[in-house]
Amino acid sequence: MTMTKWVYSFGNGRAEGRADMKNLLGGKGANLAEMSNIGINVPAGFTITTEVCTHYYANDRSYPDELARQVKEALASVEAIMRCQFGDAENPLLVSVRSGARASMPGMMDTVLNLGLNDQTVQGLIKRSGDARFAYDSYRRFIQMYSDVVLGVEHYHFDHLLEILKEDRGLTLDTELSADDWKVMVERFKARVLEETGTPFPEDPEEQLWGAIGAVFRSWMNQRAITYRKLHHIPEEWGTAVSVQAMVFGNMGDDCATGVCFSRDPSTGENVFYGEYLVNAQGEDVVAGIRTPQQISLAGKTKNKSTLPAMEEVMPDLYRELVSIRDTLEAHYRDMQDMEFTIQGGRLWMLQTRVGKRTAAAALRIAVEMAQEGVITANEAVLRVDPEALNQLLHPTLDPKAERIVLTRGLPASPGAASGRVVFSASTAEDWVQNGEKVVLVRTETSPEDIGGMHVSQGILTTRGGMTSHAAVVARGMGTPCVAGAGEIRVHEADRVFTVRGTTVREGDLITLDGATGEVMLGAVPTVQPELTGDFGTLMGWADDRRTMKVRANAETPEDAETARRFGCEGIGLCRTEHMFFDPRRIIAMRRMILAEDETGRRAALADLLPYQRKDFIDLFTIMTGLPVTIRLLDPPLHEFLPHTDNEIAEVAQVAGVDVGTVRDRAAKLAENNPMLGHRGCRLGVTYPEIYEMQARAIFEAAVHVGRESGNAPVPEIMIPLVCTKRELDLMKAAVDNVAQAVFAETGTTLDYTVGTMIELPRAALQAGSIAESARFFSFGTNDLTQTTLGISRDDAAAFLETYQAKGIFKRDPFATLDADGVGELVRLAAERGRATRPDLKLGICGEHGGDPDSIAFCQGAGLDYVSCSPYRVPIARLAAAQAALRAGTA
Amino acid sequence: MTMTKWVYSFGNGRAEGRADMKNLLGGKGANLAEMSNIGINVPAGFTITTEVCTHYYANDRSYPDELARQVKEALASVEAIMRCQFGDAENPLLVSVRSGARASMPGMMDTVLNLGLNDQTVQGLIKRSGDARFAYDSYRRFIQMYSDVVLGVEHYHFDHLLEILKEDRGLTLDTELSADDWKVMVERFKARVLEETGTPFPEDPEEQLWGAIGAVFRSWMNQRAITYRKLHHIPEEWGTAVSVQAMVFGNMGDDCATGVCFSRDPSTGENVFYGEYLVNAQGEDVVAGIRTPQQISLAGKTKNKSTLPAMEEVMPDLYRELVSIRDTLEAHYRDMQDMEFTIQGGRLWMLQTRVGKRTAAAALRIAVEMAQEGVITANEAVLRVDPEALNQLLHPTLDPKAERIVLTRGLPASPGAASGRVVFSASTAEDWVQNGEKVVLVRTETSPEDIGGMHVSQGILTTRGGMTSHAAVVARGMGTPCVAGAGEIRVHEADRVFTVRGTTVREGDLITLDGATGEVMLGAVPTVQPELTGDFGTLMGWADDRRTMKVRANAETPEDAETARRFGCEGIGLCRTEHMFFDPRRIIAMRRMILAEDETGRRAALADLLPYQRKDFIDLFTIMTGLPVTIRLLDPPLHEFLPHTDNEIAEVAQVAGVDVGTVRDRAAKLAENNPMLGHRGCRLGVTYPEIYEMQARAIFEAAVHVGRESGNAPVPEIMIPLVCTKRELDLMKAAVDNVAQAVFAETGTTLDYTVGTMIELPRAALQAGSIAESARFFSFGTNDLTQTTLGISRDDAAAFLETYQAKGIFKRDPFATLDADGVGELVRLAAERGRATRPDLKLGICGEHGGDPDSIAFCQGAGLDYVSCSPYRVPIARLAAAQAALRAGTA
Repeated sequence: MTMTKWVYSFGNGRAEGRADMKNLLGGKGANLAEMSNIGINVPAGFTITTEVCTHYYANDRSYPDELARQVKEALASVEAIMRCQFGDAENPLLVSVRSGARASMPGMMDTVLNLGLNDQTVQGLIKRSGDARFAYDSYRRFIQMYSDVVLGVEHYHFDHLLEILKEDRGLTLDTELSADDWKVMVERFKARVLEETGTPFPEDPEEQLWGAIGAVFRSWMNQRAITYRKLHHIPEEWGTAVSVQAMVFGNMGDDCATGVCFSRDPSTGENVFYGEYLVNAQGEDVVAGIRTPQQISLAGKTKNKSTLPAMEEVMPDLYRELVSIRDTLEAHYRDMQDMEFTIQGGRLWMLQTRVGKRTAAAALRIAVEMAQEGVITANEAVLRVDPEALNQLLHPTLDPKAERIVLTRGLPASPGAASGRVVFSASTAEDWVQNGEKVVLVRTETSPEDIGGMHVSQGILTTRGGMTSHAAVVARGMGTPCVAGAGEIRVHEADRVFTVRGTTVREGDLITLDGATGEVMLGAVPTVQPELTGDFGTLMGWADDRRTMKVRANAETPEDAETARRFGCEGIGLCRTEHMFFDPRRIIAMRRMILAEDETGRRAALADLLPYQRKDFIDLFTIMTGLPVTIRLLDPPLHEFLPHTDNEIAEVAQVAGVDVGTVRDRAAKLAENNPMLGHRGCRLGVTYPEIYEMQARAIFEAAVHVGRESGNAPVPEIMIPLVCTKRELDLMKAAVDNVAQAVFAETGTTLDYTVGTMIELPRAALQAGSIAESARFFSFGTNDLTQTTLGISRDDAAAFLETYQAKGIFKRDPFATLDADGVGELVRLAAERGRATRPDLKLGICGEHGGDPDSIAFCQGAGLDYVSCSPYRVPIARLAAAQAALRAGTA
Repeated sequence: MTMTKWVYSFGNGRAEGRADMKNLLGGKGANLAEMSNIGINVPAGFTITTEVCTHYYANDRSYPDELARQVKEALASVEAIMRCQFGDAENPLLVSVRSGARASMPGMMDTVLNLGLNDQTVQGLIKRSGDARFAYDSYRRFIQMYSDVVLGVEHYHFDHLLEILKEDRGLTLDTELSADDWKVMVERFKARVLEETGTPFPEDPEEQLWGAIGAVFRSWMNQRAITYRKLHHIPEEWGTAVSVQAMVFGNMGDDCATGVCFSRDPSTGENVFYGEYLVNAQGEDVVAGIRTPQQISLAGKTKNKSTLPAMEEVMPDLYRELVSIRDTLEAHYRDMQDMEFTIQGGRLWMLQTRVGKRTAAAALRIAVEMAQEGVITANEAVLRVDPEALNQLLHPTLDPKAERIVLTRGLPASPGAASGRVVFSASTAEDWVQNGEKVVLVRTETSPEDIGGMHVSQGILTTRGGMTSHAAVVARGMGTPCVAGAGEIRVHEADRVFTVRGTTVREGDLITLDGATGEVMLGAVPTVQPELTGDFGTLMGWADDRRTMKVRANAETPEDAETARRFGCEGIGLCRTEHMFFDPRRIIAMRRMILAEDETGRRAALADLLPYQRKDFIDLFTIMTGLPVTIRLLDPPLHEFLPHTDNEIAEVAQVAGVDVGTVRDRAAKLAENNPMLGHRGCRLGVTYPEIYEMQARAIFEAAVHVGRESGNAPVPEIMIPLVCTKRELDLMKAAVDNVAQAVFAETGTTLDYTVGTMIELPRAALQAGSIAESARFFSFGTNDLTQTTLGISRDDAAAFLETYQAKGIFKRDPFATLDADGVGELVRLAAERGRATRPDLKLGICGEHGGDPDSIAFCQGAGLDYVSCSPYRVPIARLAAAQAALRAGTA
């Protein structure tokens, strides 16, 4: 019997783990092992695996039997490499204890630093550092952090004690306190812990270590982590690893420093070394944004107009060493790296490397340039860019010609333009957005607790912190525009205002952020369309070469159709004809039609609608010249077109020549208990064939017209909605064919067209074999198919959908990502049965899932010919389709 | 190459067809052939097959090439047998041309009699009959019938001409007209046909024959026939055959007669020869109910208190011959026969025999007695009774002790008690029923045009016609109570009243019919429960021995549960717990629960509901001792429990201690766009676990209580509704299990229970394999499964469902009979997948389809363990399940 290995050691140019063991060691642990393996200087340590986390939660929060022994051995190995002893009063080993999940979850879980300090070992630290003030400061920091994270004694207890001491001493800044002051603080902190917990602060380093390990595992289930996982679709069962690593100190004097750097610019993707550092500081100081950091390179200093000295100036040798490590790591990992380092007494230690988060623009540029540099292949470049991230690049940016009232300027922390109403707390942001407002969250600095509010905000503005502050990192990850460290702004949270250069901005006032320049502007500034050339064009070209599915757009207005064409759509997959009836001039005719007593009355009203509808199709066919256009005949229940207000009812009654009571009666008669399952779709066509006949006539007359004008006749694909039997389709197809023959006879022209159906009801999917006898194409209407298959009305799901996600019933919102097990089985089955009847049956999807990358991957697997999505998602779908084809090995 | 045989001859003790060729020859044609084969005296003739009808409609209303020659040959054979010539002026052959479909469609299609008459052949008829008046009367009848049926010249033209002649002659009755008068009429009729059609009336018998054949085929598509087929689920594609048969005359003098008889009493099923006849009359006179007919037997004369002589008295030899034919035919067909005969010049001819329609009581008695007589097997007896017809026997009959204000008495034409408001036309009946009224249709006599109104009426009352009149035959077929020939009643249709013995009854007044006694009563008379012993008990015993599926009931009230148990249910398949909350004392607590701000408030209100719910379950478990009870936890959306009227809202606000605005706000917030797909079913249990916990507690406390009291602990089957993922079921099952453990601990008792789920969403059916890991049973909720699979809200379907049936999209209402292709596939698939996971998974159905015979046959095929239906349908389901088992060969 082999023992399970729960602990993996690293350090001194060796390691038991590797970079590809992320699932077991977490990202941090795997990369520490890898760096050690390739000879980069990392403080020795060990990683407790994610399997221990799983075991912990599966076994009533207890550890595997073997763990204690394996930790002990690993700790001994660290002591040997670092030449010091855990708990030794002369030469103590101090460690950090950090979480590290498979996917990076920045700031979400707890960390303990300086662990191993007690009244004895602090003496050893004084001896080693020669700095009693540093040692006692570290000690009190440890007590504070450990008490908060492990013992549940919150920060404010210690802050309060510190305030009292400073008042007693007549001091303001922490830096003014002496070694003795900190020593007093240590005593008072420990006394407070005893008071609060009834137990003395643990002096035994081993007890400290196990306390911290347990706290990290427990933090996997804290509310922040749960929210983050939900937002980022990270499964709970992954668990976290725990990395225990020898401490090195960037705050032991002026030959010490700590920093964060990126192998390329994470904001633009430019191939320049980019980073920030602080002399005589701990790593948390850089990330937390408490001190304004300095640039590592001279180029960066110039670019950021920084007045502080760059590391390249201050520590040129160490800088060169860092540059060399950057080159090594990027070449090794073949991707842009986000690294943390600490310099202690002139020696450079790497504490972390990971694939760096980046803006969409940066992702695009890095992928394209790395492929051009030969570092990766074009296939890899296509797979490197998250399709969802393109969203940031497709939306309008601020109009350069528009007038801007610039209030101030901060750091361009996450690009994009955002306008919205000012709010000062994450919870206000969530409330206001719930009520339909767009907001910009303004904070001194953000913390992990703000994650929910940040997610719903259009943009984020902070007054402190740098490009690697919490706000900046999280905003870039979310694709949300962010201006960080706008130091001129003074936030008065209690009064719900901020002031800047004499201007007062209140909660609810509109402001605009430009995340690409760092500008903060008053009011909502107009925007312009994005450029779709350059790196974007290159990558999309590679994607288009690789994908096998076509990408169409759901569009009916000329504006939408033009946008879609600009974004590279290959046709219209869903033109919703009813959208054409809501124009004020048309709705009246539509209502007359609905109120008509008989078919004659309906036909008269429909005759008035015909010219409008024909004009719509002429526009659409013209914009889409050379591309297919799928037109869905009238779908929604008629009551959706009836008026609600008294004025409107009176107007309709007058125009239709009936009294107000008649209009009300008709509206009441048409009202439905469950309109989603009511008299709609082809049920309208079956009961009132004249409606579909008018629409078919408009389509054919428009197609003949455009064919004559352009010499390039469109091929309309006429789509019958909500079919659940072959016979419905047969009846509607016969009506369409009759109109086609009539129009061809009247105009002396013929043209090609096809008739097909939406598959949006479970019965249609099951009966696909029979329906395909009459249908030339299927378009999966997965919005409605999801509603019927799951029995969930999208309009009413809000009341329970969140609970359903929280309780793990739905891993993803089934209206955003196709439910592969339920709805997906029906799609696969319909595709198989339909193709068995008609091998050349054209298959597409036109639900909103058509623009969702995971759903697109599903469609690839189901053998669909195309996906159709909203115009702004066309490029996302093109890239996602390419990735799906590459992953399926069909590209 | 073999020619298709389109025409089948019969007569003179031989025939080309047989009784088992109904599909090809229609019922009438097949039985005429069979009678001829077994030596019964039938007028010679031939039958044109249903394939000609199919060919006719498939080929633009044209005949197969070979048909003309085959008809000519067959006609020659008839001439040879009957020793007369078609079109011969001396000794003419006259024929009848009648439709005959596979299933009997009485009076629905057109018939032409006396065909072959013209100015020459009428002379031959005079010669043969020696009766010029009879001959010219026959001739004018022929012109009238032929013109109406074939030429489209309606009856009233001829009626009008006849009125003028009678006025001219100063006469009132047709019988007063002379031979010359009828001769004049013939000329005037022909002149009117020329006026109306622009073409002379056809003199050529062959032209007449082909005209009539075409008219019969065309009548397959007339509106009456279409409606009848829809009501009786007869497919259009069956088509009709045409039988051409030599005419024999029952109206050629007093040695002539015509009659209709049944081999057993079609009303009671008693094994007595039963029939009516008229001397010197044509067959249509008996069926149309124009003259009050005479009894054939002396026993019948006594029983019906008839004052007219019986055939047994008047024509004893012919009566004995008829009795012998009755014995032959019943023994030959092994079922009760409905026969038509004509006596011409003292010779008995049989014109038709078919399996007779009968009341449910008669069907039961005949089946049981024939099995006891050894004529058929018990299996056949079980298969002989239409389960749907039992409906008539299961409903209450008039309380014999109740006071009755008897207005008059008619013939007991179709048994059962019916109360309703008087209406005088079929269309009024349909309108009123549409508006929720129950009606009794009162007519002088009914005609095939009334079929729609007859179908919706509670009962039918006519003032003319006998037991075999149109009203009587159709009412028995429909299982609708009917009193026929209530001659004291005078209907004043124009004034919308009827008068009887000085009482005036207006349209809208309530009357009651007793179809078993013929009594017509004023007002609504109270009813009593039916007897379930005797023949009913015998047949149900045979059925129970043969079926393999159990039959349970859907019931929650003690009344329903007791009814179900009396009707032989084997448990409760669906107890809808929400029905228990609508009692006034409970609804207030329910509303307080809904209005509560938080879980604590909800739990307080639920605690008040607990004792009520526990009491309900104690009652139910007690009534169902020894039988399983499946309890569905709360299913409907909460807003269904909220008040609507201002008074109720105020009351709720007061009791809940909130203001009216709060109640309104909460109601508005809970309102849903599509409640069918909303926050209901287990979604309530997931979001408010305390509701299901209370219900589970009530169930377990009740079960423990009843177990202690009775010593026979119930086995509750707890059913979670609207599940679409395994995880929902897991969460709810865990909650139920926790409550069970708590109650067992509190009471120191344990008992067996199971937790299962409804399968009522397509996703649940697809995921059945996974869900069955946690479910001990599935109950198919086919009401909701039909709504979601077809995407049709039952509440809203009325707007198009009728059109859908009329246009052949749905052959049956999918909410009445399970859609085997769509919903059925999901049921089969769920059954297979569920059983693959858990071989002993218990499978049942609790939608309304559980009481529908065709759906029950489907369930047998799908391998279900039980069906569950409303209490009154339990016996129907028991019989249908037995038939399904017999037909599947599993009994």
